[in-house]
Amino acid sequence: MVGAGQLARMTHQAAIPLGQSLRILADSRDDGAALVAADVEVGDYRNLDDLRAFARGCDVVTFDHEHVPNEHVQALEADGVAVQPTSAALRYAQDKQAMRERLAALGIPCPRWVPVASVVDVEAFGAEVGWPLVLKSTHGGYDGKGVWIVADVDEASEVLAIGASFLAEERVLIVRELAADVARSPYGQGAVWPVVETVQQNGICVEVVAPAPGLSEELAQEAQSLALRIAEELGVTGVLAVELFQTVDGLLVNELAMRPHNSAHWTIEGARTSQFEQHLRAVLDYPLGSTTPTAPVVVMANLLGGPDGVVPKGIDERVHHCMAHWPEVKIHLYGKQFRPGRKVGHVTALGDDLEYVRGRARAAADYLMNGDRGA
Amino acid sequence: MVGAGQLARMTHQAAIPLGQSLRILADSRDDGAALVAADVEVGDYRNLDDLRAFARGCDVVTFDHEHVPNEHVQALEADGVAVQPTSAALRYAQDKQAMRERLAALGIPCPRWVPVASVVDVEAFGAEVGWPLVLKSTHGGYDGKGVWIVADVDEASEVLAIGASFLAEERVLIVRELAADVARSPYGQGAVWPVVETVQQNGICVEVVAPAPGLSEELAQEAQSLALRIAEELGVTGVLAVELFQTVDGLLVNELAMRPHNSAHWTIEGARTSQFEQHLRAVLDYPLGSTTPTAPVVVMANLLGGPDGVVPKGIDERVHHCMAHWPEVKIHLYGKQFRPGRKVGHVTALGDDLEYVRGRARAAADYLMNGDRGA
Repeated sequence: MVGAGQLARMTHQAAIPLGQSLRILADSRDDGAALVAADVEVGDYRNLDDLRAFARGCDVVTFDHEHVPNEHVQALEADGVAVQPTSAALRYAQDKQAMRERLAALGIPCPRWVPVASVVDVEAFGAEVGWPLVLKSTHGGYDGKGVWIVADVDEASEVLAIGASFLAEERVLIVRELAADVARSPYGQGAVWPVVETVQQNGICVEVVAPAPGLSEELAQEAQSLALRIAEELGVTGVLAVELFQTVDGLLVNELAMRPHNSAHWTIEGARTSQFEQHLRAVLDYPLGSTTPTAPVVVMANLLGGPDGVVPKGIDERVHHCMAHWPEVKIHLYGKQFRPGRKVGHVTALGDDLEYVRGRARAAADYLMNGDRGA
Repeated sequence: MVGAGQLARMTHQAAIPLGQSLRILADSRDDGAALVAADVEVGDYRNLDDLRAFARGCDVVTFDHEHVPNEHVQALEADGVAVQPTSAALRYAQDKQAMRERLAALGIPCPRWVPVASVVDVEAFGAEVGWPLVLKSTHGGYDGKGVWIVADVDEASEVLAIGASFLAEERVLIVRELAADVARSPYGQGAVWPVVETVQQNGICVEVVAPAPGLSEELAQEAQSLALRIAEELGVTGVLAVELFQTVDGLLVNELAMRPHNSAHWTIEGARTSQFEQHLRAVLDYPLGSTTPTAPVVVMANLLGGPDGVVPKGIDERVHHCMAHWPEVKIHLYGKQFRPGRKVGHVTALGDDLEYVRGRARAAADYLMNGDRGA
């Protein structure tokens, strides 16, 4: 797996029972996954020589992020390396314009959008869909990075001045955000988890509720079918996360990710097969595992580094209190230094009653991040 | 953790979400846990210098087996190393005579037993309890090793000729075998999982059913109380497995293990907190996690290397078929070479109906080990 963040860390955890040995390409020995895996190479995922050296001897190469240049993925494929997802599929997770064009061609509902080369383009689009609107850099965004909501032409100019390649999207009035997470193997087998509600703050996911509360069976099936169809049409292998807007008029696709995704961390305890095990099964072309939920309600809350970036008496003391107070809440720490807004872990609670389970997950996460200063 | 077998491998897996970094003392780089952990030292657990070098910088030292000489554990303690369980507790998992004497003093029901120094002693004991009877080496046995059922004085002589230290026990007429698995922290907190039935073949556990089918609430509570009391009285820290005989007259303690134990592998998926996470929480003196089961019935079946020790087309092909046929069964492979009778992995099935769940677990395990040659 190229990349050694929390996704690789949790994928390694899932590889152990499968008898697999996950080799990891890390930026540094201090990366979350590098701290816990036996087979770690330090190198630069932007450097083809490093990627080639890393890939040597791997049965299959996969990714914990979408930042490996597509031409390097193609070069590995030309070398005969099995890469999953392939460069052809990965392109649609790396280039938002290509993704939008492809989904439009497939007739899959998306927010209205245009590529924009200049402020004139944005102004014309704003006249059509109204302000504020959304600007996205076509490459490299995640966790709210690379996305700007602009109120007018002046704000749009400031964003465009960054100099990247952009597209503009209408700002959709949403009921809420959902995610449909699926996996697909090279053989073509697909498997889908229940559709979840994702709660964002400042563009970062803070909470996921599985299944999405009160979602009609009809919309849930539509979301799942849509995700399976995208996986099939784009030739995705491994986990595909389809981030969706639920609007009063139906579902719209917001973003795609072709790797384990924050919206499915709840599956570690909450589904018979976690997204990390499923990603490994898929990229290794094993049959996929059962996605049956293990509890009626599962809530995952992210642990985000606080504004001070410092934990007064250390996280360890808080972990003690958290474990004592919420003995059934599962804690996941990523081995990361605390930085403001950084995802340093998550907690998961499971049970029968939504409000109770959500309350436990939120309280435990709040306590771990804020201690006695919490709400 | 001293020792790098499957118990250390699965403990490492549980350490990852806790944000802990498990250092492992391995016999070899090829040991199951050494294949998957970042912080591995190769050394000899019988060598005090190796143990001392290994322990340097560890917050706490614990064990994946009971074969570290007790005097070495004491020496580490004298050095100021935190060792959990302590040498004082560990003694009762290392020396069966000391264990029997201590349990007798506590009034805890055990099979009748005597220390035996000669065939004369065995003969006298046989005259009292009848033949066949059981001879056990006081040190070093596991998985049926170090235990002999002898029909008469001649067979007893052959065993004693090995030259170890022995005790003799009556051969108890049992209804079945049970295990009560608990954890205890240095702070003194205890936690107990449901009592399970363990099924043995040739002295090796082949199957565990949780909870033990048809066990009365009264006997279940007696078994749990007994295990918690032993943990408390002996000062055990970490997981304590109490292997029990269920007889028509009640429960008898067979063996103790002070580490994660085969009888609780089912807890990885089957309980809110697995024995591996709980062992870590306990030895680190964190509050213990919830032991609530996640399904009404959980069945674990061990994967034991077949008589030929060779898998015709490789285990990988069988894993494919197994995953396709039993998508909900969880597979755990230990990264070991196949040898006859060796535990190379286990599978776990969960559900509502005992016969269905047990059938799935048995069939998957049988297929993985025997392929088309299975029943």
